[in-house]
Amino acid sequence: MTKGRLEAFSDGVIAILITIMVLELKAPQSASLSELRAVVPSMLVYVLSYIYLGIYWSNHHHMFHAVHHVNGAILWANLHLLFWLSLVPFVTGWMNETHFASLQVAAYGAVLLLAACAYTILTRVLVAEHGKDSLIARGLGSDFKGNISLAIYVVAIALAYWQRWIACGLYAVVAAIWLVPDRRFEKLLQGKARAES
Amino acid sequence: MTKGRLEAFSDGVIAILITIMVLELKAPQSASLSELRAVVPSMLVYVLSYIYLGIYWSNHHHMFHAVHHVNGAILWANLHLLFWLSLVPFVTGWMNETHFASLQVAAYGAVLLLAACAYTILTRVLVAEHGKDSLIARGLGSDFKGNISLAIYVVAIALAYWQRWIACGLYAVVAAIWLVPDRRFEKLLQGKARAES
Amino acid sequence: MTKGRLEAFSDGVIAILITIMVLELKAPQSASLSELRAVVPSMLVYVLSYIYLGIYWSNHHHMFHAVHHVNGAILWANLHLLFWLSLVPFVTGWMNETHFASLQVAAYGAVLLLAACAYTILTRVLVAEHGKDSLIARGLGSDFKGNISLAIYVVAIALAYWQRWIACGLYAVVAAIWLVPDRRFEKLLQGKARAES
Amino acid sequence: MTKGRLEAFSDGVIAILITIMVLELKAPQSASLSELRAVVPSMLVYVLSYIYLGIYWSNHHHMFHAVHHVNGAILWANLHLLFWLSLVPFVTGWMNETHFASLQVAAYGAVLLLAACAYTILTRVLVAEHGKDSLIARGLGSDFKGNISLAIYVVAIALAYWQRWIACGLYAVVAAIWLVPDRRFEKLLQGKARAES
Repeated sequence: MTKGRLEAFSDGVIAILITIMVLELKAPQSASLSELRAVVPSMLVYVLSYIYLGIYWSNHHHMFHAVHHVNGAILWANLHLLFWLSLVPFVTGWMNETHFASLQVAAYGAVLLLAACAYTILTRVLVAEHGKDSLIARGLGSDFKGNISLAIYVVAIALAYWQRWIACGLYAVVAAIWLVPDRRFEKLLQGKARAES
Repeated sequence: MTKGRLEAFSDGVIAILITIMVLELKAPQSASLSELRAVVPSMLVYVLSYIYLGIYWSNHHHMFHAVHHVNGAILWANLHLLFWLSLVPFVTGWMNETHFASLQVAAYGAVLLLAACAYTILTRVLVAEHGKDSLIARGLGSDFKGNISLAIYVVAIALAYWQRWIACGLYAVVAAIWLVPDRRFEKLLQGKARAES
Repeated sequence: MTKGRLEAFSDGVIAILITIMVLELKAPQSASLSELRAVVPSMLVYVLSYIYLGIYWSNHHHMFHAVHHVNGAILWANLHLLFWLSLVPFVTGWMNETHFASLQVAAYGAVLLLAACAYTILTRVLVAEHGKDSLIARGLGSDFKGNISLAIYVVAIALAYWQRWIACGLYAVVAAIWLVPDRRFEKLLQGKARAES
Repeated sequence: MTKGRLEAFSDGVIAILITIMVLELKAPQSASLSELRAVVPSMLVYVLSYIYLGIYWSNHHHMFHAVHHVNGAILWANLHLLFWLSLVPFVTGWMNETHFASLQVAAYGAVLLLAACAYTILTRVLVAEHGKDSLIARGLGSDFKGNISLAIYVVAIALAYWQRWIACGLYAVVAAIWLVPDRRFEKLLQGKARAES
């Protein structure tokens, strides 16, 4: 089976998630400075969630360049990832409405953690189908970034009950780690293209 | 006519349906355990509806691999299927708001039943266009899973008035039947690929 | 310029329009027969609007099979069509909320009329770009269905102030006219395929 | 890396933005002329925002015809552009709800200004990747329209506090500048096609 529709469907879901988060934004009715200041955390969390969804789309895009074909297990591993991503706007809105209460900050981290686990499962299923020597297995390598992210999420969720702003800071740290360009797949594909020519 | 736009349009509609269901989720304002417990059935139904839409997308994806071309009748059989699927978020939300009242549980089953009928009609129209000896006709076979699902839906709808939780359980059973990998089309396409090489 | 992105963008917009109409549906809270009966007109109008959007998508799909390339004017003629289509869920919801008041029934017809005009403009721009002897010009022909639809819309809008249910009936009549399979483009493309082989 | 998914994702996001703006439209409940007159500015702003999103989609579509491949930096420059575009429905709705208060009119302009800057950054990143002699570098040229737009936005934002209707007029002027067909890329691609044949 070809990968075209899986890519198109994932693009569609992530595009919708990124845009429906705007509907969660509550605009202040007046123009007073104090009201505007109250909107700042909402805006920052919206930006953070936007960046997270952008990172997932970008990594998904890079990784699937090295994917050759898909099967039923890959379809469902991908749907499982999209399920957790689809909860990102929900927990973003929930955290905003409760003014960053501990439970909601932890819930935000839990959804990020489960999305990261789902991404890891997707990579495993892809490697199992394509083989240990495949382009995708070599592109993923030891997945240091993925493992360090999981560790930071767990720490942040635990901290949410005592130091919720530090937890939020840690979520931003993970996003920053991933924003640093990850050229594993680009290098690999360039090498492959060179070898073919 | 080529099948590309029909696939893209169906992907778009199902991607939107899966994501707008999140908007139906009502987040509890406090962090008390009793409020959180009240959200659990909502979450479970959301997961069930997500899995149902995922199954339809996955089966649609598998089946259209064996489709060669489309005509006006196929376009409308597909739009008919998408119509019933587009009511899934509506009945999911309705069942939640009324705390699983009998009528709403039956309505949920009725939409699932009509979506299943629409899928069956789509397969018939596809076979009528492609011929009894076509790849798609052989891939569908006797459609045992489809028929057993229709029977369970009818039983569940009838039970909804007396035993609504058993009805909900039966909806989950049908989803489980379909989650078990259905390799009919994968095997067939592999056989075809082998025969061609 | 190739037509791929114009098709994908149009598919995306129509897919979203078809699905956000569900959000307009108001579910009754109780299960009494009188409440359910009140929902019936809403459901019928939802079905009618769904069919209208389906017709536009299906016709767009058929017509663009005969389109070879696009330019800036075609992009904007298409965006103009999508603009009026994007108002269909708005007027559908408005008509429902006001329980089919005359003005809203007329507004529904006006949006349908303007969408039909926009579709006619799009066909003119396409023919202007491809030439009078092109596949698309021959496929459109005298456009009898298009012209009779415009006439019925005008009559229905005028009638909306006196006989709003007849106006609604006329909207359904136009949909029925278009649901009858229109094989102009299918025949033409088959003929072309035969000539080439 | 190929550009297909970046185009599909951008199409998806802009298609959703254009359609969710309809949800912001508040329909008047009665049919009195005074209520209808109150809706007119809302409708005009909706049309203006629709045209702006259409211009961005159309220009994106034209420009990417000349793009050969994408990298991580281009993905993020594009996501950055989509971020500001995703705020267009938000500021459109905000401006409407506050009946065109000065701050909100300025905010609308600020989002347009930042989207224009993001578009300029995207063009720079594309030129950096493809080289100064590439098709895309020649297609963009001196970007006179882009620069004059930025200047008009700055003037309009400054004017919003004193003359908010003039500010709105200036936003419409920029849209009009861009609606005038921009045939740079079309001419270039025609020239390239002619040279190749």
